[in-house]
Amino acid sequence: MKKLRLLLLVCLWIHGIHSWGQTEVPRPTQAQLDWQDAELVAVFHYDLHVFDGKAYNQAKNRITPIPDYNIFNPTQLDTDQWIKAAKDAGFKIAILTATHETGFALYQSEVNPYSLKAVSWREGTGDIVRDFVNSCRKYGIAPGIYIGIRWNSFFGVHDFKVNGDNGFAANRQAYYNKMCEGMVEELTSQYGELAIIWFDGGAHGPEKGGPDVLSVFEKNQPNGIFYHNTQRADIRWGGSESGTVPYPSWGTYPFPYSHATNGEVVFKNDFQLLKEGDPNGKYYMPAMSDAPLRGYNGGHEWFWEPDDEKHIFPLEHLMDMYTRSVGHNTSLILGLTPNADGLLPEEDVRRLKEWGDEIKSRFGSPLAETSGTGNSLILKLTKKAKINHIILQEDIAQGERVRAFVLEGKTSTGWKPIFEGSVIGHKFIHAFEEMNLSEVRLTIKESKGEPILKSFKVFQSNR
Amino acid sequence: MKKLRLLLLVCLWIHGIHSWGQTEVPRPTQAQLDWQDAELVAVFHYDLHVFDGKAYNQAKNRITPIPDYNIFNPTQLDTDQWIKAAKDAGFKIAILTATHETGFALYQSEVNPYSLKAVSWREGTGDIVRDFVNSCRKYGIAPGIYIGIRWNSFFGVHDFKVNGDNGFAANRQAYYNKMCEGMVEELTSQYGELAIIWFDGGAHGPEKGGPDVLSVFEKNQPNGIFYHNTQRADIRWGGSESGTVPYPSWGTYPFPYSHATNGEVVFKNDFQLLKEGDPNGKYYMPAMSDAPLRGYNGGHEWFWEPDDEKHIFPLEHLMDMYTRSVGHNTSLILGLTPNADGLLPEEDVRRLKEWGDEIKSRFGSPLAETSGTGNSLILKLTKKAKINHIILQEDIAQGERVRAFVLEGKTSTGWKPIFEGSVIGHKFIHAFEEMNLSEVRLTIKESKGEPILKSFKVFQSNR
Repeated sequence: MKKLRLLLLVCLWIHGIHSWGQTEVPRPTQAQLDWQDAELVAVFHYDLHVFDGKAYNQAKNRITPIPDYNIFNPTQLDTDQWIKAAKDAGFKIAILTATHETGFALYQSEVNPYSLKAVSWREGTGDIVRDFVNSCRKYGIAPGIYIGIRWNSFFGVHDFKVNGDNGFAANRQAYYNKMCEGMVEELTSQYGELAIIWFDGGAHGPEKGGPDVLSVFEKNQPNGIFYHNTQRADIRWGGSESGTVPYPSWGTYPFPYSHATNGEVVFKNDFQLLKEGDPNGKYYMPAMSDAPLRGYNGGHEWFWEPDDEKHIFPLEHLMDMYTRSVGHNTSLILGLTPNADGLLPEEDVRRLKEWGDEIKSRFGSPLAETSGTGNSLILKLTKKAKINHIILQEDIAQGERVRAFVLEGKTSTGWKPIFEGSVIGHKFIHAFEEMNLSEVRLTIKESKGEPILKSFKVFQSNR
Repeated sequence: MKKLRLLLLVCLWIHGIHSWGQTEVPRPTQAQLDWQDAELVAVFHYDLHVFDGKAYNQAKNRITPIPDYNIFNPTQLDTDQWIKAAKDAGFKIAILTATHETGFALYQSEVNPYSLKAVSWREGTGDIVRDFVNSCRKYGIAPGIYIGIRWNSFFGVHDFKVNGDNGFAANRQAYYNKMCEGMVEELTSQYGELAIIWFDGGAHGPEKGGPDVLSVFEKNQPNGIFYHNTQRADIRWGGSESGTVPYPSWGTYPFPYSHATNGEVVFKNDFQLLKEGDPNGKYYMPAMSDAPLRGYNGGHEWFWEPDDEKHIFPLEHLMDMYTRSVGHNTSLILGLTPNADGLLPEEDVRRLKEWGDEIKSRFGSPLAETSGTGNSLILKLTKKAKINHIILQEDIAQGERVRAFVLEGKTSTGWKPIFEGSVIGHKFIHAFEEMNLSEVRLTIKESKGEPILKSFKVFQSNR
């Protein structure tokens, strides 16, 4: 024991010779790095009620089985068309709801009979998860799978629990848990490597009477993002479905789970902790910003509905969302809604293309760019230019280190403040009224460990 | 009104000139006549738990879903073999459990996903109801279908009710009712004419929150036997699962339903009313005697289980059962149990063949036979013979008319009493210690309307 103590003292001393803060910061896994690098994640929602010709009513649909599952008949299904549209927008990951709240599974399950095996479409042999994953591979998009087990209107599962009040319900709960584990086994083992397995609304772990989905995930997808159950989350919900998070939103968090546990702490002040994270949190778990593309003008449509194009976000709204999600150190999860024909509607496809083009146009060609370590980085322009966007990126492989920083621009009358901030993390985008500058300076006021800036870019965008 | 009264008096007077009782007796439908003529009805039970390698535990199985429905894998399924075995025993009708208490459907349902579509066996295209019906047609057996909707361990239905306690359960009940109506629609419309649709444990009618299965049956199978729901039954349960009813068992009954309604009346005194019926009952509704073939020696096995051959009834027991079921004015419903290979086990096949041979041997060749109307029928033998069985049959197309009768035999010392009875109905078999007789006399002591004896036979059987 004495030897060990001595060794520890030596280590602390060596560490102490750096001038930076001594506290180690949590570091992301490779999966988390990949996830944050992806930045834009599409989530395709598809379920039986897309075919019922009615407006989606989540509160009703999750407790009312669809009368006839054979309404599921996407005669023109073309997942290539879905994925190409996502690719055009710049998405790097695409997720499909293999099951949502009806409990109906969009693949050939051997444990859940309420699946594509049951329908007449494609004579019961359809596998949309397979089609989807194949299309993703074809277009160089990383596929992910969304599994809803919290609700199941067919089997009778209400907020994780099999409805009922006696031993019969307990037996069916045990069966349902096995069924969920079986679906996770199928979905994590039969479709290759997946970027993410997304349990919507989370999953109860065994300690709360739920299935043991985590061990199945860990066995089959050791390199994927797990989101989420009462035990673990690799990313956290960003506390709204607005597609944005407020600034600052730290990539670290005090718990190993997102919001399936500790609701009383996590939900208070309008989900403040989920939105903001905690700069001293022990767990690396960046937030995500989620919203449906059809979320404008009073709409908030995760599923396709007839005559709903008015809810597609305008381009400028999407750009603002991009800045306040990707540019606020989170991934942007955008909900896309294939229709009853099996296609992503033309209007949505067009908007995604416009949006992808605009992101490229605005951020594709920096006027100047640098990187480096230390407290101060100066970006000198070859000539004075009208700057209106700055992007900063830490090398988060080494953890989020910056705690406070200042951006200044050198004008003809000297250095002027541009922004005083805290989080940089994976990416910080600052959009501002254009300034005529010859240099831009980043000064790190406070950090844990030496700041490592992977990228410092300035832009002269059209808008 | 005066004219009508006069007419009525004339009619009563005309009717009055007959010496027989004036009360009309209920008459069977053609379906009921066919049913009683069939006499022997096989019911094949087949469900998921046949494949679990365990002893069947009904109380457990009806509330505990089978963990893996892909255990259903009858690699040697041969319904021809089943039906040939039934044919050899003399069965005229064969019924298959299209669904039993697990809720799993042995056909290609479009409304119940928990069906043969879900399993790997035959790549999800198997249809055992189709195979079964085809085999029946091939062997000249009338097919019937058994549907269990009272229990569904998968969907969570407990004694007709979707388990649960709120609006969610009510929504699923509505869904389940539609699903049941849909299954009845499929099963009554896709397999041709059926001898019977058998709802095990009955069906709740809409007035008790159940599905409206009766109108579907009436639309698609107007010539079949309906058994049974809270509204209607064409036959009644015989009050035990012993394969027998006590004597007398009248073919008439005071209610239009068997035992799905009025339980407090029907169940008392150990199901006395179900067993005995009511000679003054307004409804023609003969009892049935049901038992599984594997019901001997402490067994009572409606489903195949491993190592269960010891429970197969011995031949003599089956013959006694035959006499006290078919010979007591009821049909005998015998449960047969295909195994996990998909075959009726050899021992069962052999016993059925022996039994059919013995029935033919004992009752195939009467020593003498007559028929006729009126109070007295005498059967003269060509020479004195040792008689030990008598069979009487009324022409029940005209209703059960006999209320009391006496059988006597003429010995060398004069007429001796053989039996004093009440019901004859479709068939009365009397087995007795052999008597050396030259004539046998039937005297009807009491009847409603003129007695019509379709058949009066005596036998000198080997035993």
